[in-house]
Amino acid sequence: MEKIEPRTLKGFPDYSPADQLARQAVFAKIQSVFERFGFLPLSTPAIEYKEILMGKYGDDEKLIYSFKDNGDRDVALRYDLTVPLARYVAQNQGKLVYPFKRYQIAPVWRAENTQKGRLREFYQCDIDVVGTESFLADAEVMACICKAIEEIGVKDYELRINDRSVLSGFGAGTIRAIDKFDKIGVEGVVKELEAAGVEATEIEEVKKLLEPGGRPQAPQKIEQLIQILLEQGLAEANVLFDPTIARGLDYYTSTVFEIKIKSKPEFGSIAGGGRYDNLVDQFSDKPLPAVGGSIGIDRLLQAMSEMGLAQAAAAVQVLVINQDAALEKDYVALAAVLRSGGISTELYYEPAKLEKQFKYAENKGISYAVIMGQAEKDKGTVQVKNLATRQQKEIQRGYVVSSIS
Amino acid sequence: MEKIEPRTLKGFPDYSPADQLARQAVFAKIQSVFERFGFLPLSTPAIEYKEILMGKYGDDEKLIYSFKDNGDRDVALRYDLTVPLARYVAQNQGKLVYPFKRYQIAPVWRAENTQKGRLREFYQCDIDVVGTESFLADAEVMACICKAIEEIGVKDYELRINDRSVLSGFGAGTIRAIDKFDKIGVEGVVKELEAAGVEATEIEEVKKLLEPGGRPQAPQKIEQLIQILLEQGLAEANVLFDPTIARGLDYYTSTVFEIKIKSKPEFGSIAGGGRYDNLVDQFSDKPLPAVGGSIGIDRLLQAMSEMGLAQAAAAVQVLVINQDAALEKDYVALAAVLRSGGISTELYYEPAKLEKQFKYAENKGISYAVIMGQAEKDKGTVQVKNLATRQQKEIQRGYVVSSIS
Repeated sequence: MEKIEPRTLKGFPDYSPADQLARQAVFAKIQSVFERFGFLPLSTPAIEYKEILMGKYGDDEKLIYSFKDNGDRDVALRYDLTVPLARYVAQNQGKLVYPFKRYQIAPVWRAENTQKGRLREFYQCDIDVVGTESFLADAEVMACICKAIEEIGVKDYELRINDRSVLSGFGAGTIRAIDKFDKIGVEGVVKELEAAGVEATEIEEVKKLLEPGGRPQAPQKIEQLIQILLEQGLAEANVLFDPTIARGLDYYTSTVFEIKIKSKPEFGSIAGGGRYDNLVDQFSDKPLPAVGGSIGIDRLLQAMSEMGLAQAAAAVQVLVINQDAALEKDYVALAAVLRSGGISTELYYEPAKLEKQFKYAENKGISYAVIMGQAEKDKGTVQVKNLATRQQKEIQRGYVVSSIS
Repeated sequence: MEKIEPRTLKGFPDYSPADQLARQAVFAKIQSVFERFGFLPLSTPAIEYKEILMGKYGDDEKLIYSFKDNGDRDVALRYDLTVPLARYVAQNQGKLVYPFKRYQIAPVWRAENTQKGRLREFYQCDIDVVGTESFLADAEVMACICKAIEEIGVKDYELRINDRSVLSGFGAGTIRAIDKFDKIGVEGVVKELEAAGVEATEIEEVKKLLEPGGRPQAPQKIEQLIQILLEQGLAEANVLFDPTIARGLDYYTSTVFEIKIKSKPEFGSIAGGGRYDNLVDQFSDKPLPAVGGSIGIDRLLQAMSEMGLAQAAAAVQVLVINQDAALEKDYVALAAVLRSGGISTELYYEPAKLEKQFKYAENKGISYAVIMGQAEKDKGTVQVKNLATRQQKEIQRGYVVSSIS
């Protein structure tokens, strides 16, 4: 038989059990913060009609995965979770209670350049509030995202807030160049603007904006936002106005924000969002203002791993040792008792030498071995061995669950 | 501006917050049972090289979503979680500890006929054991799947077990026809075999197999399997040998099983699986026997909903009433206190009439309203109103969390 080479596409990683346990622990923490802030889950499909996604992402539109489905329809894999939300709200407009608050934690797909270490399949953790212009909603979205990041152990972050009105004098191309300031510096931005043929007077204004001394004062609305964020319990040192934040996507209309890890600026923004008051309109006659934010969890996890904040994963707790084929049914029943008691338990499938089975448990990070030979069976006991301390004690079989948990 | 019609593709449903809360509760229960049985999570990507998936699914191969990616590679959306697992194991062979036990709860995509109510994007909940031929692993997979189904409230199921050796005298086409027996009956199977030009003597044998009186005795191995399943705590009435179970997929080699809900046979099998000892070989020179099973959660949830077993969803607990713009910051701080106490809390964004806000809370299924005017603020109290009983009491602000949780 011809073998097929087992391989994955670049940018589409597998996550091993150890990695995935850590990821799931992080997802669960983020989800619990989202729910505490009153967001409820919405699930939209991975595939949408292509036309739903077109015209929303500016230059990045070319990164959308699109194809013809088996019925010759033009379809596309979702590029983010925001446009599908806008489509959902427009489609179910009459049925929803406003403001509509939802979260979604799910993968998105972008045909990114993998040479820069970027993934093509990655998870976003999004919250959005649809149907209110209140700036309390803007503050709530930002506070919730920050609290979620704190919950998973990152305290060392900076929330940078801007309003697109600060940049309203500039053209779309200029704004996209300003958005790259953090990566390419003043010179890089100027170079890009010159190459695009932007007028010298506009370039001068951009330079002024980007140089620390020339930065404008925060608009009053942003000052107020920051005050409300402090009431939410955010630290003053973590929140600031930054007139260079633009966000690349076309759909933002006023408030925009990004979050960075102070000690890991090389990871860029690990979360961001803003207000997009006209997106739902593209699908509906009823205008519905909205504000939202998103955590890019894969980049954040990479940064956390470098910061030594990766969570230790909880592995399987018990291995039931198999040393006698004649006792197979007893081992099965013993494993069933442990599992009913809420203890994660493996049963070694074949009778084998004790040392081999201990070695297996060690390789898998299992904490306890439960051992029962004919002698223990007759006495109604088991041996419980702590595989870290190597201590072993004989206990009544009825107490096996409580001896471990 | 031209409006784009907000719509979803057939077979690609949205799940509203109420539905998705119920789904997530079910996923969490299944996951906890999988983990108790010693399975750990693995995550593989949604998109694979197309060649990885080809030649594994028999006739169903035409249901695979495949396309050229932006780099002109032939890629495909995963059709199940088993073939990606086999690819992962072959790719990481030297690094894994065997038996390798993993679970994965994730969507798969199939271009099914939606006229029969079938979905094109749906979730599978899979467990597999790779690297052992022990029939204890077969039993463990079946017991774990059954316990997961029990955990979410379905006790009324039937686990039907067969071994492909029972059908080994028949050709692949005949086996696929037998597999449809439950849906099309003896006559349907016979008709299909005649149409395919199968010999009359083979058709006679199939008829014998399918008629209750003519069924063969269970092979000894299956008798043993059933004994082990009873040790795992399954009820005798829920487990049986069924020589007509074949499973459509090409990769099964011996044990096969399916689970149905007795009172809802029209939903067909809501879980199934079997042993596939040659699948990893297709990617590797080292043979690795394996056994696994899968719960088709969307069909199961539909059946549960019809059986009145759908789980009530836990909504947001508290609405902080906004009745005075001057107290906005105090409301924000109050919501922050409740959230820090682990209580899911919404803040009404605009000052509005009390009745409007109570109505909003009621529409969203929120349990409590917390009310603070200038008088309460000055006294250091809040009013806590139970929205179900309409009872309201004034309490010290410091006790607001404990008054609700």
